[in-house]
Amino acid sequence: MIIPETLIETERQSMLILLTGAAGFLGSHLTDRLLAEGHEVIGLDNFVTGDRENLRHLENNPKFRLMEQDVSNFIQVDEPLDYVMHFASPASPNPSSPLGYPNLPIQTLKAGALGTYNSLGLAKAHRARFLLASTSEVYGDPTVHPQSEEYWGNCDPIGPRSVYDEAKRFAEALTMAYHNVHGVRTHIVRIFNTYGPRMRLDDGRVVPNFIQQALRKEPLTIYGTGEQTRSFCYVSDLIEGIYRLMLTDEALPVNIGNPNETSIKDFALIINKLCQNEAGIITRYAETLGDDPQRRQPDITRAKSILQWEPKVELTEGLNRTIDYMRRKLGIPAGQE
Amino acid sequence: MIIPETLIETERQSMLILLTGAAGFLGSHLTDRLLAEGHEVIGLDNFVTGDRENLRHLENNPKFRLMEQDVSNFIQVDEPLDYVMHFASPASPNPSSPLGYPNLPIQTLKAGALGTYNSLGLAKAHRARFLLASTSEVYGDPTVHPQSEEYWGNCDPIGPRSVYDEAKRFAEALTMAYHNVHGVRTHIVRIFNTYGPRMRLDDGRVVPNFIQQALRKEPLTIYGTGEQTRSFCYVSDLIEGIYRLMLTDEALPVNIGNPNETSIKDFALIINKLCQNEAGIITRYAETLGDDPQRRQPDITRAKSILQWEPKVELTEGLNRTIDYMRRKLGIPAGQE
Repeated sequence: MIIPETLIETERQSMLILLTGAAGFLGSHLTDRLLAEGHEVIGLDNFVTGDRENLRHLENNPKFRLMEQDVSNFIQVDEPLDYVMHFASPASPNPSSPLGYPNLPIQTLKAGALGTYNSLGLAKAHRARFLLASTSEVYGDPTVHPQSEEYWGNCDPIGPRSVYDEAKRFAEALTMAYHNVHGVRTHIVRIFNTYGPRMRLDDGRVVPNFIQQALRKEPLTIYGTGEQTRSFCYVSDLIEGIYRLMLTDEALPVNIGNPNETSIKDFALIINKLCQNEAGIITRYAETLGDDPQRRQPDITRAKSILQWEPKVELTEGLNRTIDYMRRKLGIPAGQE
Repeated sequence: MIIPETLIETERQSMLILLTGAAGFLGSHLTDRLLAEGHEVIGLDNFVTGDRENLRHLENNPKFRLMEQDVSNFIQVDEPLDYVMHFASPASPNPSSPLGYPNLPIQTLKAGALGTYNSLGLAKAHRARFLLASTSEVYGDPTVHPQSEEYWGNCDPIGPRSVYDEAKRFAEALTMAYHNVHGVRTHIVRIFNTYGPRMRLDDGRVVPNFIQQALRKEPLTIYGTGEQTRSFCYVSDLIEGIYRLMLTDEALPVNIGNPNETSIKDFALIINKLCQNEAGIITRYAETLGDDPQRRQPDITRAKSILQWEPKVELTEGLNRTIDYMRRKLGIPAGQE
């Protein structure tokens, strides 16, 4: 495990960490983990896609402070920071949700470019370390499976997904430049599909869509044949991988995700079973939801060797926790299971 | 030809145009053309890679004003602008020249992202039209030949060329977003290899390198086999294509370049002949100069149909004009030809 002695030392000390996008699905879970490890967190968010509810339980925590601002504007912090982590961005590709990045194109481009520039500048000014939340979307509609970090990707620079893909690719290039030119200690995590509590119910992704339909005893809507596969990582596994990465000296990108593929149809059947929903599934061939690639699956060889990490939470276990969360959120009482 | 009546009207009127990168190789030629067409030009440059000599002849031209600033900083113009054209960026890929973008990585990333953001914001504020100088480098190391505008490219997001490629891809995505969201009338030209007078002698590209060696009666240095090809467009042809594009309503990218391929070896032989240099060529197999792709060639179908444009200047004619320029620049008297 490539964690030099000096970093293990840092790990034991309490760090002051600025995290952008702290009110988001991933940002809020990462905040909880950082606080649990004894660090102090300044959570920055503009609440365009982040949710205040995700931080409500930290209101009286003296180790957490909220900084309400847009990451695209200059970030002023007077205390010495040890770490800057840039997670702020819309992230749902669904054009039918107002929270999907196709409906927030300029905000998404700015979060990726100006936001990364501002957070890297902050890290440089404080001689702090930096971690960029990148994405499997840098691989676009991949022509190789699974995707290793060496794959260059297949993205349309002017297509509807470009506002996210190109912003994140630019953010990676800028991060590497600050590493190479200014010697900032940087990290890049390429995050694959993740699910769990605190996913927004209204961002149009398949997990919250299916679970809501199942809890309401409605049939689950599948777009296309249902044979298209997804590789979903439970959020606690993802956060564990990111926490390990942030303590290494690894500057090159590392994939974090779950390589287990499940077809959308099997996924729907599992969720119906877990929710005891007998309404079945409806298949719609004519429509497609967004232009999600047919397949995307992480090669996690590097994460295994550099971080000694691999996902541990089984799909049914992760789905049960997510269903419990969404049931509470929707005010639906537990069934007869 | 898709030039609506209203635009032809605009063409006849004098426009006030802000052009970033006006002191560059392409920017200065475009400035001359815009002035010749009766427009007024505000030329913005920070002279990192631009050359004051390229604008010297305009010092007493009342229709031209120089604005010395970095395009990455906010641009303040109080008079109403009709057009903003963003050409500012380092553009030579040669890592052995201090003017190559591998040696100006953060400036290059900023010119592409913050520079495009600032110039698009300026166009939006003035309800002006906008043209982005993009590049064939968005195609990266292409897997298809020739490259049409539909090809998505093959770029390494964290490689040494990413500071230019990803910045320009991001700039295209941002330009399309301003077009789609804010209704800014935008244009994107993808510029392929261009040569001609005012190329910097010291930016390490093959044309100035060969011509300087030939004028000094030294052998021309070829890296690799010399079988790799290039498609070079003479600068006046390129400017004609850009001038036509800026008067259309075409928002999607248009390739402008010369599809005629010449091997580097043939290129060297032609230059030696034109310069009456009998020192021959030297082939160096061990070294490579930069990591230029082996082949890049424009498909100009769209330019032909939308702009009724194709290159006209023959290679020997264009090289002769370039040789004359470099001979004067180097203070070498004309030979006995």
